[in-house]
Amino acid sequence: MLSKNKIKFIKSLAIKKYRDGSNCFIAEGFKLINDLMGSFVCELLVFTKEKEQAIAHFKANERILTDDAGMQKITSQTSPDGVLAVFQKPQNSATPTNICHQELCLALDEIQNPGNFGTIIRIADWFGIKHIFCSPNTADAYGPKTIQASMGSLARVKIHYIDLPSFIAQLKSEQEETPIYGTILGGENIYQSTLSNKGLIIMGNEGQGISPQLVKLLTHHVEIPHYPLGASNAESLNVAVATGIVCAEFRRNINI
Amino acid sequence: MLSKNKIKFIKSLAIKKYRDGSNCFIAEGFKLINDLMGSFVCELLVFTKEKEQAIAHFKANERILTDDAGMQKITSQTSPDGVLAVFQKPQNSATPTNICHQELCLALDEIQNPGNFGTIIRIADWFGIKHIFCSPNTADAYGPKTIQASMGSLARVKIHYIDLPSFIAQLKSEQEETPIYGTILGGENIYQSTLSNKGLIIMGNEGQGISPQLVKLLTHHVEIPHYPLGASNAESLNVAVATGIVCAEFRRNINI
Repeated sequence: MLSKNKIKFIKSLAIKKYRDGSNCFIAEGFKLINDLMGSFVCELLVFTKEKEQAIAHFKANERILTDDAGMQKITSQTSPDGVLAVFQKPQNSATPTNICHQELCLALDEIQNPGNFGTIIRIADWFGIKHIFCSPNTADAYGPKTIQASMGSLARVKIHYIDLPSFIAQLKSEQEETPIYGTILGGENIYQSTLSNKGLIIMGNEGQGISPQLVKLLTHHVEIPHYPLGASNAESLNVAVATGIVCAEFRRNINI
Repeated sequence: MLSKNKIKFIKSLAIKKYRDGSNCFIAEGFKLINDLMGSFVCELLVFTKEKEQAIAHFKANERILTDDAGMQKITSQTSPDGVLAVFQKPQNSATPTNICHQELCLALDEIQNPGNFGTIIRIADWFGIKHIFCSPNTADAYGPKTIQASMGSLARVKIHYIDLPSFIAQLKSEQEETPIYGTILGGENIYQSTLSNKGLIIMGNEGQGISPQLVKLLTHHVEIPHYPLGASNAESLNVAVATGIVCAEFRRNINI
């Protein structure tokens, strides 16, 4: 039975302030919840009779059976799947700069759209990128739209919110040769660039690109070329699409 | 002055039935409207005092000055930009199969999400792809979400709704060697495939991929490899991201 207080709690998790306060987030749909189950502690599982068997093996601190009407009160989906989970956010651990000296990582400078952010988490996962470093103004990784768009990839990709300029400064002080890539209009053709399997790729805000403060810290300015070269067609690519193309190109170069 | 009838008409264009009936679609925001102005006939321009000067040079069959409250009644944006245009949809011309023998084109098999569709139109534009052939069940290119996500690229990319299987059959009967590419799990590593600068690339539905009927007609099955190869990380990429990576790879191969 879904109490009023429970409904209020679940609905509150649509808002960042309450996610931060409770250290919890919501995921909806069997497949997504199944993907996250092994990586996050499940506080609460709400499900309809139809899903009871399918989710029987899920571990959760609390389970509530409800009906379609109950599910309608808590879902943010237009076609709810009949199962909603509240997970604990992962513990904040110290942010590892050293990882960037050893493997390829992503940095997001104020990505605003939660759908773009979730799609980028999924891209990182596909291309074996395990850490995303985000400026504090980047969308919340645990917001419902980001979670749904990331399709379970948060189970494998770690998100760190940090001050990017000081993070990169520290990175450089530790090991000067670690490359810092950024996509910049007028940068070098990415197909002709030397791409490493270590370092940081910075992707910028949807409208503004990478902030000037961070552009200064780049060691490589790269660009995805138009076709034909120099054509004056679309002015830009969606940031998630650009991230996909850039990551694919890094991984193509070293794909064994 | 925005009459009740005008408001009703503009709002009706959020629905496909009324867009089809009136042969009109809506675009919002100065930049988008500016991009579309040269390619589509503007039936109606609604703007606030703030935008009056900026849009003075736009040609439109009718112009209506309104205030913020009036704009609120017709906008579908959370932060309306102060200018909304109603454009005529382009005339339906005969669908050219022969274009696929000469240049690279895209085909979309039931892409459902209008944001994905608009993003794909923008990708096509960036990579100099001028024609997209869509199955009848693909989202409407003239829906407000597709239009906003395409960011003016409809000015340069033509959309054709057709029966894809018979279109491809005709294509093959005209010229057997024209390649038909499709991304398929288990396909050939795209980095090792022979990619042409002619033919058709088919992208499939968000959940189902390319329909079996069309898979049979492919001449090349390609796949974007995971990193590392064979890893069991993310199961799939967002369809717009996959389209971006595939198009980039085709164009990289022949980028002069």
